[in-house]
Amino acid sequence: MHQLVLIRHGESTWNLENRFTGWTDVELTPTGVAQAQEAGRLLREAGFEFDVAYTSVLRRAIWTLWHCLDRMERTWLPVVHSWRLNERHYGALQGLNKADMAKEFGDEQVLVWRRSYDTPPPALDANDPRGQRQDVRYARLKPEDIPLTECLKDTVERVLPLWNDSIAPAIRLGKRVVIAAHGNSIRGLVKYLDNISDADIVGLNIPNGQPLVYELDDDLKPIRHYYLGQQGA
Amino acid sequence: MHQLVLIRHGESTWNLENRFTGWTDVELTPTGVAQAQEAGRLLREAGFEFDVAYTSVLRRAIWTLWHCLDRMERTWLPVVHSWRLNERHYGALQGLNKADMAKEFGDEQVLVWRRSYDTPPPALDANDPRGQRQDVRYARLKPEDIPLTECLKDTVERVLPLWNDSIAPAIRLGKRVVIAAHGNSIRGLVKYLDNISDADIVGLNIPNGQPLVYELDDDLKPIRHYYLGQQGA
Repeated sequence: MHQLVLIRHGESTWNLENRFTGWTDVELTPTGVAQAQEAGRLLREAGFEFDVAYTSVLRRAIWTLWHCLDRMERTWLPVVHSWRLNERHYGALQGLNKADMAKEFGDEQVLVWRRSYDTPPPALDANDPRGQRQDVRYARLKPEDIPLTECLKDTVERVLPLWNDSIAPAIRLGKRVVIAAHGNSIRGLVKYLDNISDADIVGLNIPNGQPLVYELDDDLKPIRHYYLGQQGA
Repeated sequence: MHQLVLIRHGESTWNLENRFTGWTDVELTPTGVAQAQEAGRLLREAGFEFDVAYTSVLRRAIWTLWHCLDRMERTWLPVVHSWRLNERHYGALQGLNKADMAKEFGDEQVLVWRRSYDTPPPALDANDPRGQRQDVRYARLKPEDIPLTECLKDTVERVLPLWNDSIAPAIRLGKRVVIAAHGNSIRGLVKYLDNISDADIVGLNIPNGQPLVYELDDDLKPIRHYYLGQQGA
Protein backbone atom coordinates (compact mmCIF):
# COMPACT_ATOMS: atom_id res chain seq x y z
CA MET A 1 0.00 0.00 0.00
CA HIS A 2 1.12 3.54 -0.79
CA GLN A 3 0.30 6.73 1.07
CA LEU A 4 -0.05 10.17 -0.45
CA VAL A 5 -0.79 13.38 1.45
CA LEU A 6 -2.29 16.47 -0.17
CA ILE A 7 -2.39 19.84 1.60
CA ARG A 8 -4.08 22.97 0.32
CA HIS A 9 -2.17 26.10 1.40
CA GLY A 10 -3.24 27.97 4.53
CA GLU A 11 -5.32 31.13 4.39
CA SER A 12 -3.80 33.80 2.15
CA THR A 13 -4.15 37.57 2.29
CA TRP A 14 -6.46 37.50 -0.73
CA ASN A 15 -8.62 34.70 0.68
CA LEU A 16 -9.17 37.15 3.52
CA GLU A 17 -9.81 40.10 1.17
CA ASN A 18 -12.20 38.00 -0.93
CA ARG A 19 -10.23 38.62 -4.13
CA PHE A 20 -9.68 36.30 -7.10
CA THR A 21 -6.06 35.18 -6.70
CA GLY A 22 -5.12 32.62 -9.35
CA TRP A 23 -1.44 32.93 -10.22
CA THR A 24 -0.95 36.12 -8.19
CA ASP A 25 1.81 35.40 -5.68
CA VAL A 26 0.20 36.52 -2.42
CA GLU A 27 1.37 35.70 1.11
CA LEU A 28 -0.10 33.60 3.91
CA THR A 29 -1.92 35.40 6.71
CA PRO A 30 -0.88 34.66 10.33
CA THR A 31 -3.88 32.28 10.39
CA GLY A 32 -2.52 30.59 7.26
CA VAL A 33 0.87 30.13 8.94
CA ALA A 34 -0.81 28.61 12.00
CA GLN A 35 -2.83 26.24 9.78
CA ALA A 36 0.36 25.07 8.07
CA GLN A 37 2.11 24.53 11.41
CA GLU A 38 -0.89 22.61 12.71
CA ALA A 39 -0.82 20.40 9.61
CA GLY A 40 2.83 19.62 10.38
CA ARG A 41 2.04 18.91 14.01
CA LEU A 42 -0.76 16.49 13.04
CA LEU A 43 1.43 14.70 10.50
CA ARG A 44 4.25 14.36 12.98
CA GLU A 45 1.96 13.18 15.75
CA ALA A 46 0.47 10.55 13.43
CA GLY A 47 3.96 9.32 12.52
CA PHE A 48 3.96 10.29 8.84
CA GLU A 49 7.29 10.28 7.03
CA PHE A 50 8.01 11.58 3.54
CA ASP A 51 10.82 11.12 1.06
CA VAL A 52 9.96 13.98 -1.26
CA ALA A 53 7.62 16.98 -1.32
CA TYR A 54 5.98 18.59 -4.34
CA THR A 55 4.65 22.12 -4.43
CA SER A 56 3.79 24.92 -6.84
CA VAL A 57 5.88 27.99 -7.64
CA LEU A 58 3.56 30.21 -5.58
CA ARG A 59 4.69 31.30 -2.14
CA ARG A 60 1.44 30.58 -0.29
CA ALA A 61 1.84 26.87 -1.09
CA ILE A 62 5.62 26.94 -0.62
CA TRP A 63 5.43 28.61 2.80
CA THR A 64 2.66 26.20 3.81
CA LEU A 65 5.02 23.35 2.97
CA TRP A 66 7.95 24.98 4.77
CA HIS A 67 6.02 25.60 8.00
CA CYS A 68 4.58 22.10 7.83
CA LEU A 69 8.02 20.52 7.31
CA ASP A 70 9.48 22.61 10.10
CA ARG A 71 6.94 21.27 12.59
CA MET A 72 7.74 17.76 11.36
CA GLU A 73 11.49 18.52 11.84
CA ARG A 74 11.92 17.69 8.16
CA THR A 75 13.09 21.06 6.76
CA TRP A 76 15.81 19.21 4.83
CA LEU A 77 13.38 17.16 2.73
CA PRO A 78 13.90 17.40 -1.07
CA VAL A 79 11.26 19.64 -2.66
CA VAL A 80 10.14 19.65 -6.30
CA HIS A 81 8.56 22.91 -7.50
CA SER A 82 6.28 22.87 -10.52
CA TRP A 83 4.08 25.51 -12.13
CA ARG A 84 1.73 22.59 -12.96
CA LEU A 85 0.62 22.58 -9.31
CA ASN A 86 -0.26 26.30 -9.40
CA GLU A 87 -3.77 27.47 -8.62
CA ARG A 88 -6.21 27.77 -11.53
CA HIS A 89 -5.36 30.92 -13.51
CA TYR A 90 -8.23 33.32 -12.98
CA GLY A 91 -7.66 35.42 -16.10
CA ALA A 92 -8.86 39.03 -16.11
CA LEU A 93 -10.54 38.48 -12.73
CA GLN A 94 -7.20 38.15 -10.91
CA GLY A 95 -6.93 40.79 -8.21
CA LEU A 96 -10.58 41.79 -8.39
CA ASN A 97 -12.99 41.53 -5.47
CA LYS A 98 -15.48 38.69 -5.72
CA ALA A 99 -18.38 40.73 -4.30
CA ASP A 100 -17.62 43.66 -6.67
CA MET A 101 -17.63 41.26 -9.61
CA ALA A 102 -20.98 39.82 -8.48
CA LYS A 103 -22.41 43.35 -8.41
CA GLU A 104 -21.00 44.19 -11.84
CA PHE A 105 -21.72 40.94 -13.71
CA GLY A 106 -24.41 39.33 -11.54
CA ASP A 107 -24.18 36.41 -9.14
CA GLU A 108 -25.03 33.92 -11.85
CA GLN A 109 -22.18 34.93 -14.17
CA VAL A 110 -19.64 34.91 -11.33
CA LEU A 111 -20.89 31.50 -10.25
CA VAL A 112 -20.31 30.23 -13.80
CA TRP A 113 -16.73 31.54 -13.73
CA ARG A 114 -16.13 30.08 -10.30
CA ARG A 115 -17.92 26.77 -10.61
CA SER A 116 -18.25 25.80 -14.27
CA TYR A 117 -15.94 22.96 -15.28
CA ASP A 118 -15.22 24.20 -18.77
CA THR A 119 -16.07 27.92 -19.01
CA PRO A 120 -13.00 30.07 -18.32
CA PRO A 121 -13.23 33.66 -17.04
CA PRO A 122 -12.32 36.43 -19.53
CA ALA A 123 -8.63 36.16 -20.52
CA LEU A 124 -5.95 38.58 -19.42
CA ASP A 125 -4.47 40.66 -22.21
CA ALA A 126 -1.06 39.20 -23.06
CA ASN A 127 0.58 42.48 -22.01
CA ASP A 128 -1.43 42.94 -18.81
CA PRO A 129 0.97 43.62 -15.92
CA ARG A 130 -1.02 41.07 -13.90
CA GLY A 131 0.15 38.39 -16.36
CA GLN A 132 3.16 36.07 -16.02
CA ARG A 133 4.93 36.33 -19.36
CA GLN A 134 7.67 38.55 -17.90
CA ASP A 135 7.98 36.50 -14.71
CA VAL A 136 11.38 34.77 -14.50
CA ARG A 137 9.92 31.66 -12.85
CA TYR A 138 8.05 30.87 -16.06
CA ALA A 139 10.88 31.86 -18.40
CA ARG A 140 11.50 28.28 -19.54
CA LEU A 141 7.89 27.70 -20.60
CA LYS A 142 6.79 28.37 -24.15
CA PRO A 143 4.88 31.67 -24.05
CA GLU A 144 1.78 29.87 -25.34
CA ASP A 145 1.96 27.47 -22.37
CA ILE A 146 1.62 30.35 -19.90
CA PRO A 147 -2.15 30.67 -19.47
CA LEU A 148 -4.04 33.93 -19.78
CA THR A 149 -7.06 32.28 -18.17
CA GLU A 150 -8.16 28.77 -17.24
CA CYS A 151 -11.32 26.83 -16.53
CA LEU A 152 -10.99 23.92 -14.10
CA LYS A 153 -10.73 21.55 -17.08
CA ASP A 154 -7.61 23.42 -18.24
CA THR A 155 -6.10 23.17 -14.76
CA VAL A 156 -6.78 19.44 -14.54
CA GLU A 157 -5.18 18.93 -17.96
CA ARG A 158 -1.96 20.69 -17.00
CA VAL A 159 -1.72 19.06 -13.55
CA LEU A 160 -1.97 15.49 -14.83
CA PRO A 161 1.30 15.41 -16.83
CA LEU A 162 3.16 16.11 -13.57
CA TRP A 163 1.28 13.28 -11.89
CA ASN A 164 1.96 10.86 -14.75
CA ASP A 165 5.57 11.85 -15.44
CA SER A 166 6.91 12.50 -11.96
CA ILE A 167 4.66 11.97 -8.92
CA ALA A 168 3.13 8.59 -9.81
CA PRO A 169 6.51 7.09 -10.85
CA ALA A 170 8.01 8.32 -7.55
CA ILE A 171 5.20 6.68 -5.56
CA ARG A 172 5.60 3.44 -7.53
CA LEU A 173 9.30 3.48 -6.60
CA GLY A 174 8.22 3.51 -2.97
CA LYS A 175 8.71 7.23 -2.29
CA ARG A 176 6.40 8.69 0.33
CA VAL A 177 5.03 11.90 -1.19
CA VAL A 178 3.44 15.05 0.24
CA ILE A 179 1.99 17.69 -2.09
CA ALA A 180 1.34 21.25 -0.89
CA ALA A 181 -0.74 22.99 -3.52
CA HIS A 182 -3.96 24.88 -4.25
CA GLY A 183 -7.71 24.30 -4.21
CA ASN A 184 -8.01 23.64 -7.92
CA SER A 185 -4.76 21.80 -8.58
CA ILE A 186 -5.68 19.47 -5.70
CA ARG A 187 -9.18 19.12 -7.17
CA GLY A 188 -7.48 18.01 -10.38
CA LEU A 189 -5.57 15.26 -8.58
CA VAL A 190 -8.62 14.19 -6.55
CA LYS A 191 -10.79 14.11 -9.69
CA TYR A 192 -8.29 11.83 -11.38
CA LEU A 193 -7.66 9.56 -8.37
CA ASP A 194 -11.32 9.12 -7.40
CA ASN A 195 -12.64 9.32 -10.95
CA ILE A 196 -15.05 12.13 -10.06
CA SER A 197 -17.33 13.50 -12.78
CA ASP A 198 -16.92 16.96 -14.32
CA ALA A 199 -20.21 17.98 -12.73
CA ASP A 200 -19.31 16.78 -9.23
CA ILE A 201 -15.71 18.00 -8.99
CA VAL A 202 -16.68 21.69 -9.16
CA GLY A 203 -18.69 21.34 -5.95
CA LEU A 204 -15.95 19.57 -4.00
CA ASN A 205 -14.38 21.86 -1.40
CA ILE A 206 -10.78 21.36 -0.27
CA PRO A 207 -10.25 23.08 3.10
CA ASN A 208 -7.15 25.17 3.82
CA GLY A 209 -4.23 23.54 5.58
CA GLN A 210 -5.81 20.16 6.36
CA PRO A 211 -3.78 17.08 5.40
CA LEU A 212 -5.83 14.92 3.02
CA VAL A 213 -4.48 11.37 3.21
CA TYR A 214 -4.92 8.90 0.35
CA GLU A 215 -4.16 5.23 0.74
CA LEU A 216 -3.44 3.77 -2.69
CA ASP A 217 -3.10 0.19 -3.90
CA ASP A 218 -0.25 -1.03 -6.10
CA ASP A 219 -2.00 0.35 -9.20
CA LEU A 220 -2.30 3.69 -7.36
CA LYS A 221 -6.06 3.28 -7.11
CA PRO A 222 -7.48 4.79 -3.89
CA ILE A 223 -8.44 2.35 -1.15
CA ARG A 224 -9.71 5.18 1.04
CA HIS A 225 -9.04 8.80 1.90
CA TYR A 226 -9.54 10.94 5.00
CA TYR A 227 -8.65 14.30 6.46
CA LEU A 228 -6.07 13.91 9.21
CA GLY A 229 -7.40 15.03 12.58
CA GLN A 230 -10.96 14.26 11.52
CA GLN A 231 -10.74 10.47 11.53
CA GLY A 232 -13.15 10.17 14.43
CA ALA A 233 -15.47 12.86 13.09
CA MET B 1 32.97 35.33 -15.32
CA HIS B 2 30.99 33.36 -12.74
CA GLN B 3 29.43 34.60 -9.54
CA LEU B 4 28.97 32.61 -6.35
CA VAL B 5 27.31 33.86 -3.17
CA LEU B 6 27.96 32.36 0.26
CA ILE B 7 25.79 33.18 3.28
CA ARG B 8 26.40 32.04 6.83
CA HIS B 9 23.12 31.47 8.68
CA GLY B 10 21.67 34.25 10.83
CA GLU B 11 22.03 34.28 14.61
CA SER B 12 20.81 31.05 16.23
CA THR B 13 19.45 30.46 19.71
CA TRP B 14 22.70 28.79 20.74
CA ASN B 15 24.88 31.56 19.29
CA LEU B 16 22.94 33.72 21.73
CA GLU B 17 23.32 31.25 24.61
CA ASN B 18 27.06 30.88 23.89
CA ARG B 19 26.79 27.11 23.49
CA PHE B 20 28.73 24.81 21.19
CA THR B 21 26.21 23.91 18.48
CA GLY B 22 27.80 21.79 15.75
CA TRP B 23 25.23 19.40 14.29
CA THR B 24 22.56 20.24 16.87
CA ASP B 25 19.54 21.47 14.93
CA VAL B 26 18.77 24.75 16.70
CA GLU B 27 16.51 27.55 15.43
CA LEU B 28 17.19 31.10 14.30
CA THR B 29 16.52 33.92 16.77
CA PRO B 30 14.31 36.83 15.63
CA THR B 31 17.59 38.69 14.97
CA GLY B 32 18.72 35.76 12.82
CA VAL B 33 15.49 35.92 10.82
CA ALA B 34 15.97 39.66 10.29
CA GLN B 35 19.58 39.10 9.16
CA ALA B 36 18.41 36.55 6.60
CA GLN B 37 15.69 38.87 5.30
CA GLU B 38 18.19 41.71 5.04
CA ALA B 39 20.54 39.45 3.05
CA GLY B 40 17.67 38.78 0.63
CA ARG B 41 16.86 42.48 0.38
CA LEU B 42 20.49 43.33 -0.40
CA LEU B 43 20.76 40.59 -3.03
CA ARG B 44 17.53 41.67 -4.66
CA GLU B 45 18.46 45.34 -4.61
CA ALA B 46 21.82 44.53 -6.21
CA GLY B 47 20.07 42.54 -8.96
CA PHE B 48 21.41 39.09 -8.11
CA GLU B 49 19.68 36.11 -9.71
CA PHE B 50 20.24 32.44 -8.92
CA ASP B 51 19.45 29.19 -10.68
CA VAL B 52 20.02 26.85 -7.76
CA ALA B 53 20.63 27.08 -4.02
CA TYR B 54 22.65 24.75 -1.83
CA THR B 55 22.26 24.43 1.89
CA SER B 56 22.90 22.03 4.77
CA VAL B 57 20.39 19.73 6.48
CA LEU B 58 20.28 22.01 9.54
CA ARG B 59 17.33 24.33 9.98
CA ARG B 60 19.27 27.48 10.90
CA ALA B 61 20.88 27.45 7.43
CA ILE B 62 17.69 26.27 5.70
CA TRP B 63 15.52 28.98 7.27
CA THR B 64 18.18 31.56 6.47
CA LEU B 65 17.96 30.49 2.84
CA TRP B 66 14.14 30.48 2.89
CA HIS B 67 13.84 33.98 4.37
CA CYS B 68 16.49 35.24 1.97
CA LEU B 69 14.75 33.70 -1.07
CA ASP B 70 11.41 35.07 0.09
CA ARG B 71 12.75 38.62 0.14
CA MET B 72 14.17 38.03 -3.34
CA GLU B 73 10.75 36.70 -4.45
CA ARG B 74 12.48 33.46 -5.40
CA THR B 75 10.84 30.97 -3.00
CA TRP B 76 10.41 28.58 -5.94
CA LEU B 77 14.15 28.20 -6.59
CA PRO B 78 15.46 24.59 -6.63
CA VAL B 79 17.33 23.78 -3.41
CA VAL B 80 19.92 21.05 -2.88
CA HIS B 81 20.36 19.91 0.73
CA SER B 82 23.59 18.22 1.76
CA TRP B 83 24.96 17.12 5.13
CA ARG B 84 28.37 18.03 3.67
CA LEU B 85 27.51 21.70 4.21
CA ASN B 86 26.69 21.14 7.90
CA GLU B 87 28.57 23.01 10.59
CA ARG B 88 31.69 21.41 12.02
CA HIS B 89 30.69 18.60 14.37
CA TYR B 90 31.65 19.71 17.87
CA GLY B 91 31.81 16.25 19.41
CA ALA B 92 31.25 15.91 23.14
CA LEU B 93 31.17 19.70 23.49
CA GLN B 94 27.85 19.98 21.62
CA GLY B 95 25.27 21.64 23.82
CA LEU B 96 27.76 22.79 26.43
CA ASN B 97 28.36 26.41 27.36
CA LYS B 98 31.59 27.88 26.02
CA ALA B 99 32.32 29.84 29.22
CA ASP B 100 31.65 26.78 31.43
CA MET B 101 34.04 24.76 29.30
CA ALA B 102 36.71 27.45 29.65
CA LYS B 103 36.32 27.30 33.44
CA GLU B 104 36.50 23.51 33.46
CA PHE B 105 39.30 22.91 30.94
CA GLY B 106 41.00 26.32 30.83
CA ASP B 107 40.92 29.01 28.15
CA GLU B 108 43.89 27.55 26.36
CA GLN B 109 42.37 24.09 25.88
CA VAL B 110 39.05 25.55 24.68
CA LEU B 111 40.91 27.80 22.26
CA VAL B 112 42.67 24.73 20.83
CA TRP B 113 39.32 23.00 20.31
CA ARG B 114 37.84 26.11 18.76
CA ARG B 115 40.74 27.32 16.71
CA SER B 116 43.14 24.48 15.98
CA TYR B 117 43.02 23.27 12.38
CA ASP B 118 43.61 19.60 13.12
CA THR B 119 42.83 18.90 16.80
CA PRO B 120 39.23 17.74 17.24
CA PRO B 121 37.32 18.13 20.51
CA PRO B 122 36.63 14.93 22.50
CA ALA B 123 34.36 12.59 20.51
CA LEU B 124 30.76 11.88 21.38
CA ASP B 125 30.06 8.36 22.49
CA ALA B 126 28.43 6.50 19.57
CA ASN B 127 25.30 6.01 21.67
CA ASP B 128 25.14 9.56 23.05
CA PRO B 129 21.62 10.94 22.52
CA ARG B 130 23.27 14.14 21.23
CA GLY B 131 24.64 12.11 18.30
CA GLN B 132 23.11 11.67 14.85
CA ARG B 133 23.23 7.92 14.23
CA GLN B 134 19.49 7.57 14.89
CA ASP B 135 18.59 10.72 12.94
CA VAL B 136 16.57 9.87 9.79
CA ARG B 137 18.21 12.64 7.76
CA TYR B 138 21.52 10.78 7.95
CA ALA B 139 20.03 7.32 7.45
CA ARG B 140 21.58 6.88 4.00
CA LEU B 141 25.10 7.58 5.20
CA LYS B 142 27.35 4.76 6.32
CA PRO B 143 27.44 4.88 10.13
CA GLU B 144 31.20 5.44 10.01
CA ASP B 145 30.66 8.53 7.82
CA ILE B 146 28.54 10.20 10.52
CA PRO B 147 31.12 12.07 12.60
CA LEU B 148 31.39 11.84 16.37
CA THR B 149 33.65 14.90 16.36
CA GLU B 150 35.52 16.99 13.79
CA CYS B 151 38.42 19.36 13.59
CA LEU B 152 38.24 22.03 10.88
CA LYS B 153 40.44 19.84 8.67
CA ASP B 154 37.79 17.09 8.83
CA THR B 155 35.07 19.59 7.90
CA VAL B 156 37.05 20.89 4.93
CA GLU B 157 37.64 17.35 3.73
CA ARG B 158 33.95 16.44 3.74
CA VAL B 159 32.80 19.76 2.21
CA LEU B 160 35.10 19.54 -0.83
CA PRO B 161 33.54 16.45 -2.46
CA LEU B 162 30.25 18.38 -2.71
CA TRP B 163 32.10 21.29 -4.30
CA ASN B 164 33.92 19.05 -6.76
CA ASP B 165 31.06 16.71 -7.61
CA SER B 166 28.10 19.07 -7.67
CA ILE B 167 28.62 22.79 -7.05
CA ALA B 168 31.62 23.43 -9.31
CA PRO B 169 30.12 21.45 -12.23
CA ALA B 170 26.88 23.44 -11.84
CA ILE B 171 28.79 26.74 -11.94
CA ARG B 172 30.77 25.57 -15.00
CA LEU B 173 27.44 24.85 -16.71
CA GLY B 174 26.52 28.49 -16.16
CA LYS B 175 24.28 28.02 -13.12
CA ARG B 176 24.22 30.94 -10.72
CA VAL B 177 24.68 29.44 -7.26
CA VAL B 178 23.92 30.64 -3.72
CA ILE B 179 25.06 28.61 -0.72
CA ALA B 180 23.52 29.11 2.73
CA ALA B 181 25.65 27.28 5.23
CA HIS B 182 27.70 27.55 8.43
CA GLY B 183 30.83 29.27 9.70
CA ASN B 184 33.10 26.28 9.25
CA SER B 185 31.65 24.77 6.08
CA ILE B 186 31.97 28.22 4.48
CA ARG B 187 35.53 28.47 5.83
CA GLY B 188 36.20 25.19 4.02
CA LEU B 189 35.01 26.61 0.71
CA VAL B 190 36.85 29.90 1.22
CA LYS B 191 40.07 28.07 2.17
CA TYR B 192 39.89 26.06 -1.04
CA LEU B 193 38.90 28.96 -3.32
CA ASP B 194 41.46 31.45 -1.96
CA ASN B 195 44.09 28.82 -1.17
CA ILE B 196 44.36 29.97 2.45
CA SER B 197 46.86 28.21 4.73
CA ASP B 198 45.82 25.89 7.56
CA ALA B 199 47.19 28.44 10.03
CA ASP B 200 45.34 31.41 8.55
CA ILE B 201 41.93 29.85 7.94
CA VAL B 202 41.23 29.24 11.64
CA GLY B 203 41.40 33.00 12.30
CA LEU B 204 39.06 33.97 9.45
CA ASN B 205 35.67 35.08 10.73
CA ILE B 206 32.55 34.69 8.59
CA PRO B 207 29.82 37.06 9.87
CA ASN B 208 26.21 35.91 10.25
CA GLY B 209 23.79 36.62 7.42
CA GLN B 210 26.05 38.73 5.21
CA PRO B 211 26.22 37.73 1.54
CA LEU B 212 29.84 36.99 0.59
CA VAL B 213 30.16 37.40 -3.18
CA TYR B 214 32.90 35.64 -5.15
CA GLU B 215 33.65 36.51 -8.75
CA LEU B 216 35.33 33.53 -10.39
CA ASP B 217 37.13 33.15 -13.71
CA ASP B 218 36.49 30.30 -16.15
CA ASP B 219 38.74 28.01 -14.12
CA LEU B 220 36.71 28.96 -11.04
CA LYS B 221 39.68 30.85 -9.61
CA PRO B 222 38.60 33.92 -7.58
CA ILE B 223 39.04 37.30 -9.24
CA ARG B 224 37.81 39.11 -6.14
CA HIS B 225 35.39 38.75 -3.27
CA TYR B 226 33.42 41.20 -1.14
CA TYR B 227 30.63 41.33 1.39
CA LEU B 228 27.50 42.76 -0.17
CA GLY B 229 26.48 46.03 1.46
CA GLN B 230 30.06 46.74 2.47
CA GLN B 231 31.46 47.51 -0.96
CA GLY B 232 32.17 51.12 -0.06
CA ALA B 233 33.53 50.21 3.37
